[in-house]
Amino acid sequence: MIHSDELIDALTAAAHAAANAARPETLRHFRSDPHTDNKDGAGFDPVTEGDRAAERAMRAVLADLRPDDAILGEEFGVQPGTSGLTWVLDPIDGTRAYIAGAPTWGVLVAVSDENGPIMGLIDQPHVGERFFGGPHGATLDGPGGQRRLTTRGPRPLSEAIVMTTFPEVGTPEEGAAFRRVAAAAKLTRYGLDCYAYGLVALGLADLVVEAGLQPYDIQGPMAVVQAAGGIVTDWQGGPAHEGGRVIAAANEAIHAEAMRLLKG
Amino acid sequence: MIHSDELIDALTAAAHAAANAARPETLRHFRSDPHTDNKDGAGFDPVTEGDRAAERAMRAVLADLRPDDAILGEEFGVQPGTSGLTWVLDPIDGTRAYIAGAPTWGVLVAVSDENGPIMGLIDQPHVGERFFGGPHGATLDGPGGQRRLTTRGPRPLSEAIVMTTFPEVGTPEEGAAFRRVAAAAKLTRYGLDCYAYGLVALGLADLVVEAGLQPYDIQGPMAVVQAAGGIVTDWQGGPAHEGGRVIAAANEAIHAEAMRLLKG
Repeated sequence: MIHSDELIDALTAAAHAAANAARPETLRHFRSDPHTDNKDGAGFDPVTEGDRAAERAMRAVLADLRPDDAILGEEFGVQPGTSGLTWVLDPIDGTRAYIAGAPTWGVLVAVSDENGPIMGLIDQPHVGERFFGGPHGATLDGPGGQRRLTTRGPRPLSEAIVMTTFPEVGTPEEGAAFRRVAAAAKLTRYGLDCYAYGLVALGLADLVVEAGLQPYDIQGPMAVVQAAGGIVTDWQGGPAHEGGRVIAAANEAIHAEAMRLLKG
Repeated sequence: MIHSDELIDALTAAAHAAANAARPETLRHFRSDPHTDNKDGAGFDPVTEGDRAAERAMRAVLADLRPDDAILGEEFGVQPGTSGLTWVLDPIDGTRAYIAGAPTWGVLVAVSDENGPIMGLIDQPHVGERFFGGPHGATLDGPGGQRRLTTRGPRPLSEAIVMTTFPEVGTPEEGAAFRRVAAAAKLTRYGLDCYAYGLVALGLADLVVEAGLQPYDIQGPMAVVQAAGGIVTDWQGGPAHEGGRVIAAANEAIHAEAMRLLKG
C-alpha cells in the first residue's frame, strides 16, 4: 500500500512520541536498585515494572495521536483498530541485558500495514541513541548528533561480522545452522540484542541471525535495517515480520551467501 | 605500601586527566567511516589509529603530570621510571567491539606499585561513562550523574550472572573450566569486554571469568572491582595483576563457589 506524505509524517511523529514516552519509564528502573533480589516470583521485579510502565506510556501516547490504529504489544496484547494500521511495541527488548545493566537493550516501535512495517525504531535510552527507519531512509540520533544510515557493501562472508544474542540461538538444529554461518565469518559477536540490527544499519556489521522471535522483536529492527538498504527475511527468504527465524543482512550478496549455509 | 593522601590525590587527578585526553582520540575513529575496508594490512586501520593516538595522548599527559613514574602501554611498551610507580594503559580494550560499533570497549588506566594497582578506571567514551576505583572507594560517572559502586552480596551460583567476552574463553581446557561455571549459573552474558567488570562493580553481575589476559587488560578493571568490594584473583586464588587467567567476583562466597568449578 502507498501511504500519503501526510500520513507518513503523522506516523513518524507518533513513533517518536511513543519512544520519548517510554524512555523515562525504562530508565526509572534500569540499574535503579542493583541489590533488588528477584529470586522469588513474589518479589518486586524491576524488569516487569519497567516493561509494563513503558508500554502503558506508549499506549497512552498512541491512544491520543492515533486512536484508530490497532496495537500489538508484548505486555498487554492486542487492541483492535479500524485504520488498517497496527503499532507493534516491545517496551524492553533484551531483558537479560537490562537486568545485567548492559546498554544493549532497547525500546522497539513499529507501525505496520498488511505487508509489514512501514517504519520503525530502536531506542537505547541509557546511551540516548535512536535508530529510525522509514520511507525517507534511516537515521541515528545520539550523543554525536544525527547521521544518515546506510548498510555496508558486499564482501565475502570470510570478511564479515555476524551477530546474534545467545550462542545457542534456538533449537539444536537452529544453533547448528547458525554455527555454519559463524564458522565461515571473520568475527562473531554475541549479546547485542536489538542493538545488533542498529550496527548493521550503521554499516558496521554484515549479518544478524536469530531464531524464535516474536513479531514485536523484529518489526522495529527490520524497518531500520531495510530503510538503511539492508535485507531482512526469514531463513527461507520469505517475509520476516511475523518473527520466527530471521536473518538481517547488509546487502543481497551476503544475504545469499549466508542463506546457503543456513539451509545446510 | 601505604601512600600519602597527597600522593593519592595527585594520582587520581593524573588518571582522570589521562582518560580525558584519550576520549577524543578514541571517538575520532569510532564509527567514523563505517565503510572503511580493513581487508588488507596496507590499508588505513581505524583501530590501530585510535589505539595509538589515545596512548600517545595519555603518555603526553603523564609525562607532564607524573614524569618520574614508569609506563606500560599496550601500543608503545615500557618506559622506565624512578618513583616505583607504573602506569598501565590499554587505550582501546575490546577492539572487536570497537570495530563493530558496540559500546562495550573501554580505555583502561591503572597505576600500580609492587603489589598491584593502587587505583584504576574503565572509561567508555561513547556512552560517556567512567568507572573509577581507588583507596577512597569506587564510583561511576555517567549520563545520570555520579554514584558510589558496591558489589552485590552473596547468592548461590545458581542465582548468579556470569560474564565473559568470547564463548571459547581461551584454550580448550580453559573453555571447559569456564563452561562448568557457566552451566551452574543462572545467566551467562558474552561480548561485554571490560564493561563486564564495571557491571560487577555496579552490583548487577556476580562474576567475570577470562583467560589469556595481559597486565594492561586487567589492572584498571581489577582496581574498580576491588574498590567496590569485590575480589579479583587468578584461577588459583593468587594475584591477578599480571594477567593470564582471571576471575572477578562480587564477594568471597561466590568467588569460592566458582573457584571450585574452575579447578575442576
